[in-house]
Amino acid sequence: MKIIDLNCDMGESFGPYSLGNDHEVIQLISSVNIACGFHGGDPDVMDQTVAMAKKYHVGIGAHPGFPNLIGFGRWNMEIPEQTLTNMIIYQIGALDIFCKKHDVIMQHVKPHGNLNNMADKNTSIATSIVEAVQSVNSNLPLFVKPNSELERIAKRKGQPYVLELFADRAYNKDLTLVPRHQENAVITDSQVAAQRVIQMVKENTITAITGETIRVEGKTICVHGDTPSAIELIKDIRKLLEIENIKIGSPV
Amino acid sequence: MKIIDLNCDMGESFGPYSLGNDHEVIQLISSVNIACGFHGGDPDVMDQTVAMAKKYHVGIGAHPGFPNLIGFGRWNMEIPEQTLTNMIIYQIGALDIFCKKHDVIMQHVKPHGNLNNMADKNTSIATSIVEAVQSVNSNLPLFVKPNSELERIAKRKGQPYVLELFADRAYNKDLTLVPRHQENAVITDSQVAAQRVIQMVKENTITAITGETIRVEGKTICVHGDTPSAIELIKDIRKLLEIENIKIGSPV
Amino acid sequence: MKIIDLNCDMGESFGPYSLGNDHEVIQLISSVNIACGFHGGDPDVMDQTVAMAKKYHVGIGAHPGFPNLIGFGRWNMEIPEQTLTNMIIYQIGALDIFCKKHDVIMQHVKPHGNLNNMADKNTSIATSIVEAVQSVNSNLPLFVKPNSELERIAKRKGQPYVLELFADRAYNKDLTLVPRHQENAVITDSQVAAQRVIQMVKENTITAITGETIRVEGKTICVHGDTPSAIELIKDIRKLLEIENIKIGSPV
Amino acid sequence: MKIIDLNCDMGESFGPYSLGNDHEVIQLISSVNIACGFHGGDPDVMDQTVAMAKKYHVGIGAHPGFPNLIGFGRWNMEIPEQTLTNMIIYQIGALDIFCKKHDVIMQHVKPHGNLNNMADKNTSIATSIVEAVQSVNSNLPLFVKPNSELERIAKRKGQPYVLELFADRAYNKDLTLVPRHQENAVITDSQVAAQRVIQMVKENTITAITGETIRVEGKTICVHGDTPSAIELIKDIRKLLEIENIKIGSPV
Repeated sequence: MKIIDLNCDMGESFGPYSLGNDHEVIQLISSVNIACGFHGGDPDVMDQTVAMAKKYHVGIGAHPGFPNLIGFGRWNMEIPEQTLTNMIIYQIGALDIFCKKHDVIMQHVKPHGNLNNMADKNTSIATSIVEAVQSVNSNLPLFVKPNSELERIAKRKGQPYVLELFADRAYNKDLTLVPRHQENAVITDSQVAAQRVIQMVKENTITAITGETIRVEGKTICVHGDTPSAIELIKDIRKLLEIENIKIGSPV
Repeated sequence: MKIIDLNCDMGESFGPYSLGNDHEVIQLISSVNIACGFHGGDPDVMDQTVAMAKKYHVGIGAHPGFPNLIGFGRWNMEIPEQTLTNMIIYQIGALDIFCKKHDVIMQHVKPHGNLNNMADKNTSIATSIVEAVQSVNSNLPLFVKPNSELERIAKRKGQPYVLELFADRAYNKDLTLVPRHQENAVITDSQVAAQRVIQMVKENTITAITGETIRVEGKTICVHGDTPSAIELIKDIRKLLEIENIKIGSPV
Repeated sequence: MKIIDLNCDMGESFGPYSLGNDHEVIQLISSVNIACGFHGGDPDVMDQTVAMAKKYHVGIGAHPGFPNLIGFGRWNMEIPEQTLTNMIIYQIGALDIFCKKHDVIMQHVKPHGNLNNMADKNTSIATSIVEAVQSVNSNLPLFVKPNSELERIAKRKGQPYVLELFADRAYNKDLTLVPRHQENAVITDSQVAAQRVIQMVKENTITAITGETIRVEGKTICVHGDTPSAIELIKDIRKLLEIENIKIGSPV
Repeated sequence: MKIIDLNCDMGESFGPYSLGNDHEVIQLISSVNIACGFHGGDPDVMDQTVAMAKKYHVGIGAHPGFPNLIGFGRWNMEIPEQTLTNMIIYQIGALDIFCKKHDVIMQHVKPHGNLNNMADKNTSIATSIVEAVQSVNSNLPLFVKPNSELERIAKRKGQPYVLELFADRAYNKDLTLVPRHQENAVITDSQVAAQRVIQMVKENTITAITGETIRVEGKTICVHGDTPSAIELIKDIRKLLEIENIKIGSPV
């Protein structure tokens, strides 16, 4: 029986500020990426989100980001490599102890926002991420985009990783994402997006924006929960997966 | 053979800002309390300080503080109990992963500055501290002042703890510290202070400011390294300890 | 013709985090207290909120708070008096320059959250607030609660101030607020609350929780905009004010 | 009589952390760039530094930086243009009110660290800086490097500016600085550096690293005060200026 993971970012509220529909969405997915207090999240939110993930049997990932709450980790930053490595270690540790408190095991690490985006091509940043994870747990898998520098560095250094695909994004034929500012970069028809997920899982292929069918073994699909239409997309994906008798579950 | 621990706060530098004489002082002590990024310290400093403590075989303690870099954790804050608990857990986790990275085991937890001072009498704060530590490691000892609310809560909840004494501070007969603003609260003659340490260790007593000899089994002595005279005091204590054939070493 | 000011806190969003219904509420009031980046708000939000206040001809007040985003300025903090004074000056300056940019004049200063609450009784904090305002503009009025230490210090130092009353809070006969945790401290019936405002404005009296009619010349009424029922209350107050032919407008 | 300005960054201490030798250096210069709390500095330090600048009759400049204390504003950041503009306005306002408190007039604005460095070539960042200053005071001059994008945008928008030169840095023949990582980029012989300053002031020329004599009308020389050798350089420059009968004074 086929199995696919659905992952979603959560735990991004901070102090008085609430973000997302975590309690609803967590029941629809199988892995959660939890903010660690740098780009979002705070100790209370981390505690609650880990507890919630445990309750709904969802795999827990650390979601380290740039030290940049005001920009939500979405501004490019050039941080010295060793410093960035230590910042990522710090964030993983902060989440890990809440896992320990709730007696669950951290499942994965997925970098957030522009830390992740910059690691598509930036060797130094990709190295920081992989070395941070590897220095504390050489068995802890990273979620990486196919054909990213992050994938290459993880592979080269022997750190386990899981290929992550996007339901609602168009791909180039080299498996990189079509940039958001380009036409048709985002797939807005949730039926089409859901159908693409079925293809990713059943056939291990993606149809590139230029028409080619490209082989890729994605094990986790990134979904979002911050808008009603995003939640609708998750539900449409789940329906099609059920029809196709594909199970939703942890990628590791 | 008698043994006593000397502990000192370290790792309080931040980004471009340097504080203390960590490399010199760490060679004179047996336990170090490492800032965790809230009142001081940053991921690079934590990494380096843990590495240095390992190199000099010094016991490592987490030194969580209030979320208050500008006031260095030295301003009273009233934080909701559960939130404060989670903030302390977060900091312990952040330091613990650097211990894991360097393959050393965290030895203790000692609260910093006014988080510690408020826990002398404030039940809610003392409870936050004990519950934070206990929720992640019920065997991890706290450094506590004698006759403090922190000691009482740790004892009541069954969390291990180590009594900490101060070489250069006068004591009331109930073993609380004479407040700094009172006359003779600080012992400025380092020979006198060193001699008091010998008494603490050899006879398990302190002479109170009112003259009484009070029994107390302190296992660790708090010293400072941020001024030349503070370092002089450590050296004077070490000399007397050597003469008395008392070993300096971990309290646990 | 009678006139009364309605003031409301705004501009408390931060980076990715949205708070309040500022655009709707600002059209219902006559004075706005704008967060200055310490307990909430950020430079973009300040710029937008000042622009919006100008557009709707609403009086602009600086709303300085404790340096505590995660607790939204709602945790007690004990900050050295001179440091707190400078923190308030800094925040006033930060907002003032956005007033300058939009070619409007700052109308008032109102301290936020627990900075304001602590100034009810704490002389040092009340002094910091008054000295901060006075050191940069001896004509800039403070919004103060009747019979608060803040009122006394402002009066003693000759800084202008405006008495502020609450529509939905019960008062003791000494004009202090009944603490929220006491029974009937909050008036939940918006008709009753609106009727109390009419009494405050027309008769310059409040009926204390113990039944006495107390004289007080409030010039501004604090309202809230963060919940649907809070907005309902503003609308009910406005209706009654219109019926009574009382104008809503600036208190200075 | 010739006149030249010597400017230096100051007020970069923060909370418990001390940086620089401000009190000594301020007596050797004529303009000071004061950190505004984003990359360094805090309200107390700003207050004290403005007071000190007033006492020694030194021209005061706002020194806005990236919102990045841990990296001291020395990491590249890509901030949306409008947001960066507002962050710079905020910082100018925060410093300006301390000028108002001490009854002095702000003389200039000089961007800090990598905010300044990125504005050498980045049009968006240079635009943010110029628009920020212009939106609050169209007469307030910027300190800019010759042939920088910041100079071009200031000129194009009609904002006044002052050309700033460096005593101890080598120049390319297009008047851009030789990057630090290149050989001979930094002039370590303070006599040579001082002599270059005399040439800059008397002859309005610089000898490029490639040997050409290039014309440039610098009105302010950037010096540093954070190391003993930096202070030595200032003193050597002052001696030569005195011999040459060139006065040290404000550039505007």
